[in-house]
Amino acid sequence: MESDESTEWHFWQDKGELDKAPTVITIREVTDMLRENLNKDGHRPVVPLGHGDPSSFFRTSAATEDAIVNAIRSAKYNCYPPANGLFSARGAIAEYLSHDLPYKLSPDDVYLTVGCTQAIEIIMDALARPGANVLLPRPGFPYHEARARCSNLEVRHYDLLPEQGWEIDLENVRALSDENTVAMFIINPGNPCGSVYTRHHLEKVAEMARKLGFLVVADEAHEHFTFGNNPFVSMGVFGSIAPVLTVNSISKRWSVPGWRLGWLVTNDPNGILKKSGLTKKIIGCLNVSTDPPTPIQGAIPDILKKTKKEDLSKMVEIVREAADTCYNKVEEIPFMTCPHKPEGSIFLMVKLNVSLFDDINDDLEFCLKLAKEESVILLPAGLALGMKNWLRIIFAVEPSLLEDGLGRIKAFCQRHAKKQ
Amino acid sequence: MESDESTEWHFWQDKGELDKAPTVITIREVTDMLRENLNKDGHRPVVPLGHGDPSSFFRTSAATEDAIVNAIRSAKYNCYPPANGLFSARGAIAEYLSHDLPYKLSPDDVYLTVGCTQAIEIIMDALARPGANVLLPRPGFPYHEARARCSNLEVRHYDLLPEQGWEIDLENVRALSDENTVAMFIINPGNPCGSVYTRHHLEKVAEMARKLGFLVVADEAHEHFTFGNNPFVSMGVFGSIAPVLTVNSISKRWSVPGWRLGWLVTNDPNGILKKSGLTKKIIGCLNVSTDPPTPIQGAIPDILKKTKKEDLSKMVEIVREAADTCYNKVEEIPFMTCPHKPEGSIFLMVKLNVSLFDDINDDLEFCLKLAKEESVILLPAGLALGMKNWLRIIFAVEPSLLEDGLGRIKAFCQRHAKKQ
Repeated sequence: MESDESTEWHFWQDKGELDKAPTVITIREVTDMLRENLNKDGHRPVVPLGHGDPSSFFRTSAATEDAIVNAIRSAKYNCYPPANGLFSARGAIAEYLSHDLPYKLSPDDVYLTVGCTQAIEIIMDALARPGANVLLPRPGFPYHEARARCSNLEVRHYDLLPEQGWEIDLENVRALSDENTVAMFIINPGNPCGSVYTRHHLEKVAEMARKLGFLVVADEAHEHFTFGNNPFVSMGVFGSIAPVLTVNSISKRWSVPGWRLGWLVTNDPNGILKKSGLTKKIIGCLNVSTDPPTPIQGAIPDILKKTKKEDLSKMVEIVREAADTCYNKVEEIPFMTCPHKPEGSIFLMVKLNVSLFDDINDDLEFCLKLAKEESVILLPAGLALGMKNWLRIIFAVEPSLLEDGLGRIKAFCQRHAKKQ
Repeated sequence: MESDESTEWHFWQDKGELDKAPTVITIREVTDMLRENLNKDGHRPVVPLGHGDPSSFFRTSAATEDAIVNAIRSAKYNCYPPANGLFSARGAIAEYLSHDLPYKLSPDDVYLTVGCTQAIEIIMDALARPGANVLLPRPGFPYHEARARCSNLEVRHYDLLPEQGWEIDLENVRALSDENTVAMFIINPGNPCGSVYTRHHLEKVAEMARKLGFLVVADEAHEHFTFGNNPFVSMGVFGSIAPVLTVNSISKRWSVPGWRLGWLVTNDPNGILKKSGLTKKIIGCLNVSTDPPTPIQGAIPDILKKTKKEDLSKMVEIVREAADTCYNKVEEIPFMTCPHKPEGSIFLMVKLNVSLFDDINDDLEFCLKLAKEESVILLPAGLALGMKNWLRIIFAVEPSLLEDGLGRIKAFCQRHAKKQ
């Protein structure tokens, strides 16, 4: 019996639904689209300033590689892990994070996840209930919004203030929140803004969360990349004011995003999350989810213990120089403005003055033509981050490639400028 | 400002909702519960016959370990992977699977996932739409049902026939399906039944799927563990009759479930899944999901190429002997019957005659007391699989441990027998 056209398949998708532009487009989808627009005959190397991957820039240390190799050779970590992760790994992470907190985390505060990606997925699923809403920053990280929508959570965007170092517009948060607001998400150091919040600002966030009755979820993936005046302060420091969930991974600091090992941590010395039942829901979600690879979990104690501080300082110094180069070069391009010099993360947000172009009408057109003509990939923030005519630039790439890319951007702008 | 009791937290969970027994309980939750019931002062080793993990029984080959070590040392796989997986890994898997199919798979038919676990999650999310239902086997694998419910898919259970080698009750499938049935899930080799379906039976399934208009999802995780009269036949063989999604991983065959590398494959030479829009939905789901670790993806071509056939034959021979031991010992226990000698997978289903016991009323009570008194963990199939007074026994454990465990079960039964 061969298949014919007469069967009516019940899994057929509604074409209208499928063709509708998704409400949230991920960075992966945008950069994939731009890559398809690259000139296939281009001789120059592609300059990837659209998608942040430190492993293209830094090779992780031999000690980190050794930790995995030893875990594999021991054959002790080929088994399924427990739903919340290996005790030894959770204990090592709890100890490591407690250094910077006014209280001590327990291994049971730590839940291992398949990167920050899965940590966000688990949090959204745990928070979901009919009518609930979450507050997300604009600009922010589109994946947060995508997962909120997957969990049927209503998304409300609060503004960041570019002229105030991309601080949170607290008045705006207050105006947006109501009795169904279950959580506010912050990203510190800022993605995409390169901001690093002061202790004082974070304390204000915690006080507001407590007053308004929601928890704070802090995505701290770029924790180690800070190089401005404000040192990094974990939101967890204020867990006694309002319950905090922090999310982090080994991806950035150890330049191994492909190893997929992250964690979510309950920073809650008053035990409110436990009393509320939310930790029980988190465990329930982990029980029906996939797990991070056991050998990487097994290697975590060694990775944390054997990493040298000097390696980090060297890395941060290189990122700082790249940020300076990027900022200074952007300043030389009259078609763009950067309202705030980055102090952390690996990103810079610039505003495009499209009125100066002859044949470019918005950020997406800019990025599509730039990919085609100059083989440079940038993130159009209008399409990807809800910030029309802004661009997100990654500066954590090889210095010579970065300079080359910014030179091409400048030439591109000049070529498309309105004739006087 | 310290937290006090006056704040009304909006993320508080409804206690009634939270305390309600979940509609689906995962095997992980059940075995965790039984482990808590173990006698902490027991001197004898725990015999874990509840949760299948081949890595406790077999160590993976040196060649497989080498493949990962080389991938790590190359530093080529520390980066984020593409959403559907590395091309080299997808190509190697497509080639490997095509050997047993009447058509050739392309690398684009293969989507890499974080174990079979995530493959099932992605399929359920892709199939979800208001009113849709899926058909799952009873007994089956509770994780399938848990994920269907997470995706708001209605679950309908079709029966397997213990007296016919646990074949699918096709009449029952027909009666349960309607125009909202989008997929039928099968597990072959059978979990928990140890069955291996004939080519003829699978062809019947495909023909029925085509007639009734749904696709077939085949969980083939135990593909390599077959040792009866029926050789393993992939459901993909019948992809030209009805579209088939197969799900598999390196977990069982290579004894590395902790490495979290699985795949879902579209077996659909007529391109119906593509035309229907379902592949587009699968890609959409993968775009907002976490990925399997890149170094393991990078190692896949080597793992597939350098694995020796003899290793597998040796492993299968050991599993066959374990199955025989288990079946024969169970036959000697008058309180249990096994309707079908296992021909594949690592599981055996036995029916408990509770009327013969003095103080045991059902499968759960049996397993709780067995854990406490004998330190043996078995899966109560009433609680976990919807098969009241059945038990699932894993036989892929050390032979001496298996014999010890079955001896303890026999002694336990005799001790609790009704006095004549």
